[in-house]
Amino acid sequence: MIEKIQHIGIAVADLEKAVSFYRDVLGLQFAGYEEVPDQKVKTAIFRVGETKIELLASTSPDGPIGRFIEKRGEGIHHICFAVGDIEEAIRRTKEKGGRMIDEEPRQGVEGTKVAFVHPRSAFGVLVEYAQEGGKEE
Amino acid sequence: MIEKIQHIGIAVADLEKAVSFYRDVLGLQFAGYEEVPDQKVKTAIFRVGETKIELLASTSPDGPIGRFIEKRGEGIHHICFAVGDIEEAIRRTKEKGGRMIDEEPRQGVEGTKVAFVHPRSAFGVLVEYAQEGGKEE
Repeated sequence: MIEKIQHIGIAVADLEKAVSFYRDVLGLQFAGYEEVPDQKVKTAIFRVGETKIELLASTSPDGPIGRFIEKRGEGIHHICFAVGDIEEAIRRTKEKGGRMIDEEPRQGVEGTKVAFVHPRSAFGVLVEYAQEGGKEE
Repeated sequence: MIEKIQHIGIAVADLEKAVSFYRDVLGLQFAGYEEVPDQKVKTAIFRVGETKIELLASTSPDGPIGRFIEKRGEGIHHICFAVGDIEEAIRRTKEKGGRMIDEEPRQGVEGTKVAFVHPRSAFGVLVEYAQEGGKEE
C-alpha cells in the first residue's frame, strides 16, 4: 500500500533562513516555492533521492503551522507516505483501528489527493497519505 | 553530498504497540529489531522505498529517547541523511556556519559512521549524517 515517503514536512518560522540552511549548508537541491492559501502556508521544496523535504512557513499566526510553532517550536511537522490508492489506505487504516483526521481524501498540491491520520493513532506522528495525480512530479 | 534520506527516527514509548501500528495499520515492511546499548535504545526498523523508519524506544528513563519523550512526548526524533563522505559533510557544515554535536564521526549501527548536527543550527530539526560502511544494507 505504501510505496515510499513522499515528503517530510518541517515547520519553520523564517522560510528564507531555513532555505539557506537546507540549500547552502546541507547542499540539498532546491526545487521551488509553493503557496497553499487554504492552509495559510508557504512551502519551499527540496528533492532528496526519491523523496522531498518541504519547509512550511505560516503566512498567518492562526494557521496550522503558526499554531504548531507556537505550541512546540520549529521542527518536523509530518511524514507523508505515497500510496497507490488513497481511498483504500483510509479504509484499511480505519478497519485496523486507526483514526483519520480526513475520512475523505481532499485536494493536495500538484494534483495529489491527501488525507491525514490522527497523531493519537500514530504515536505522536502526524501521518499524511498522498496519492499522486496525473500531473508529472 | 547528501544522497538520500537514510532513515527517520521516531521516539515511541511502547515499542510493541508502535510496531503493530507501522506493520499492521500502515502495512510497512518490518525488517527487524536492533539494540544500541550505548544509546540506551531498542529500535524496530521498517523499510519504505529507499529509506527506513526506525522506531526508537528507550531501555532506560535517563537515555536520550527517554528524556526526549519526557520533554516533548512521542514523535519524530531525527532525520538521517546518507552522505558519501562524512568527514567532508562535517567540515562543510562547520565552514558554512552550522554547529555540529559530533565534530568527529562516531560508530553507528550496521557499520555506519554517524555525526549529529545541532538542532539549533537546523531550525529545530535533529539532523544526523550517516556514511554507510562495508556491510551490505
